[in-house]
Amino acid sequence: MPDQMQRIVLASRPEGQASEENFRLESVDMPQPEEGEVLVRVHYMSLDPYMRGRMNAGKSYADPVEIGETMTAGGVGEVIASNSPDFQPGDFALGAFGWASHACAQGSDIRKLDPDMAPLTTALGVLGMPGFTAWHGLDAYGRPQAGETLVVAAATGPVGSMVGQLAKQKGLRVVGIAGGADKCKLAVETFGFDACLDHRAYASAEGLKEALAAECPDGIDIYYENVGGKVLEAVLPLMNNFGRIPVCGMIAWYNSAETDLTAPAIWRSVLTKFLSVNGFIIFNHYDRYGDFLGEVGPGIASGDIKYLEDIAEGLENAPRTFLSMMQGGNTGKQIVKLV
Amino acid sequence: MPDQMQRIVLASRPEGQASEENFRLESVDMPQPEEGEVLVRVHYMSLDPYMRGRMNAGKSYADPVEIGETMTAGGVGEVIASNSPDFQPGDFALGAFGWASHACAQGSDIRKLDPDMAPLTTALGVLGMPGFTAWHGLDAYGRPQAGETLVVAAATGPVGSMVGQLAKQKGLRVVGIAGGADKCKLAVETFGFDACLDHRAYASAEGLKEALAAECPDGIDIYYENVGGKVLEAVLPLMNNFGRIPVCGMIAWYNSAETDLTAPAIWRSVLTKFLSVNGFIIFNHYDRYGDFLGEVGPGIASGDIKYLEDIAEGLENAPRTFLSMMQGGNTGKQIVKLV
Repeated sequence: MPDQMQRIVLASRPEGQASEENFRLESVDMPQPEEGEVLVRVHYMSLDPYMRGRMNAGKSYADPVEIGETMTAGGVGEVIASNSPDFQPGDFALGAFGWASHACAQGSDIRKLDPDMAPLTTALGVLGMPGFTAWHGLDAYGRPQAGETLVVAAATGPVGSMVGQLAKQKGLRVVGIAGGADKCKLAVETFGFDACLDHRAYASAEGLKEALAAECPDGIDIYYENVGGKVLEAVLPLMNNFGRIPVCGMIAWYNSAETDLTAPAIWRSVLTKFLSVNGFIIFNHYDRYGDFLGEVGPGIASGDIKYLEDIAEGLENAPRTFLSMMQGGNTGKQIVKLV
Repeated sequence: MPDQMQRIVLASRPEGQASEENFRLESVDMPQPEEGEVLVRVHYMSLDPYMRGRMNAGKSYADPVEIGETMTAGGVGEVIASNSPDFQPGDFALGAFGWASHACAQGSDIRKLDPDMAPLTTALGVLGMPGFTAWHGLDAYGRPQAGETLVVAAATGPVGSMVGQLAKQKGLRVVGIAGGADKCKLAVETFGFDACLDHRAYASAEGLKEALAAECPDGIDIYYENVGGKVLEAVLPLMNNFGRIPVCGMIAWYNSAETDLTAPAIWRSVLTKFLSVNGFIIFNHYDRYGDFLGEVGPGIASGDIKYLEDIAEGLENAPRTFLSMMQGGNTGKQIVKLV
């Protein structure tokens, strides 16, 4: 076992757009597992948009990462030393290991993975937090009904692609929004969306709205919100009465809050269209994780539910990969392979 | 029977603030009831903030009043001629009679009132649309739990005063917001609010927020939204996780959309605090009207639930009274007595 491990810490807080200077790669002493803990070597770490929020000062739904602290991330690790009765060296586990080559964690805080059941990377994507987010938000707050129309952005991402496929299974018309013609093609051909619009092709929310209106002749019943910004502005006027908006993210507004959309316009839509808007993060709903696996797992095993992964290599490339992902540079669930 | 009736029509659409010039009093021929219709003489008409929305062009949740058309209003009328088997002259009925001395209506579109059961005016207020709005919004979207904290503005109005009393009955801490020291005193002494803040005493949302924070030491679980504007801006930062916001109006933004609150700030609160926001108008929920009367009626009959009415006189004074009400000039449910 090496006596040093590598980690990436928050070097400084971004002002507006985040940059590589906000991160720093460090070598530190290899930690020793305490009573009840395991030491893992991280094989795969997850990169997710929520991490941008943790880089800001001030509490969002979670405490910020402090300057000099390891960046937060979920990961899949191999146990290499164990003081927990529940784990042996060679076991694989899912946990909050951070942007790091190794980590110690309480056995009770991590979940054992069976590499023969599904590829290990799926624990970070389609069978993990993003897939579960898609399923719970659609089911609990979207309340989809056959014949309705759903719109979701980041349509080839791990949340959007799952939302779209689940809604199609339930008999909805599904219109995606994505960045670039290639992603739009993927959304339709791989994920079965009825249509997908390239938001980069529309300079204004008004143009995007007109294109959406053409693809949603019966209006929009569910807008699964993960981006905010121009897309929200285009969608709101097209929402039907009694529409539902599950809100799991607003990536367009993470770096900047510039927008033409006003607060009264949002409130007016909520009131006059009798909308139901629900913010949520999946971390509060793990009591339903078993239901999710039971419902979605078979479709993934059979191949009926498709998923895409975008796997970068090397911890040192995590900051660049993360920043690129925040601009839509990835295609599918962004993962970093460390081993 | 006179051969002329009086009505107030929309003379022009307001630009920003509405004014008396937007209305016109007219005399027209007395209408004759068709088959199935009754002719009523209106005794009381209701003035409500939603009417401001009907004065604008463009569909809100209802079609606008057209130029030259009678302004919309609920009213209590005495049947003076009937071609409906369900009504006889002398009966009293609740219906959408408009800003008018007389009106014809289908018997099936109006509801018979028993003047011995409750004062006729209560059909427009505490036992009518505003009281029902308060009850349904709190019950269905507020989901109140004992020990929680609720905030509602226009605290002495027909909606706010009912929301506050119902929430007190359920064991919540209830903090009102109202315009002026007299109304705040009424909210506490007559309606039993735990506290009430005078929004006029705070130039900025920040000042109001600090005062609210002091009165809501455990944060805010339910914000019953009927005003928008500065109050919403002050409340949002104080909302607790999993808070609920039933939205039944936004009177502060009816005349103008000026605000310091931004769209991303609203969305960020919804997301990071896991809020549930529901827009509604009571016209969609009359299937629950019987439940409302069954639950709230006894408290009104016994005097446990208080209510205030502000009764102006004369159809010709309706525009002035309406405009004053939109600025908070009324105390309690605004009604105009015509007979």
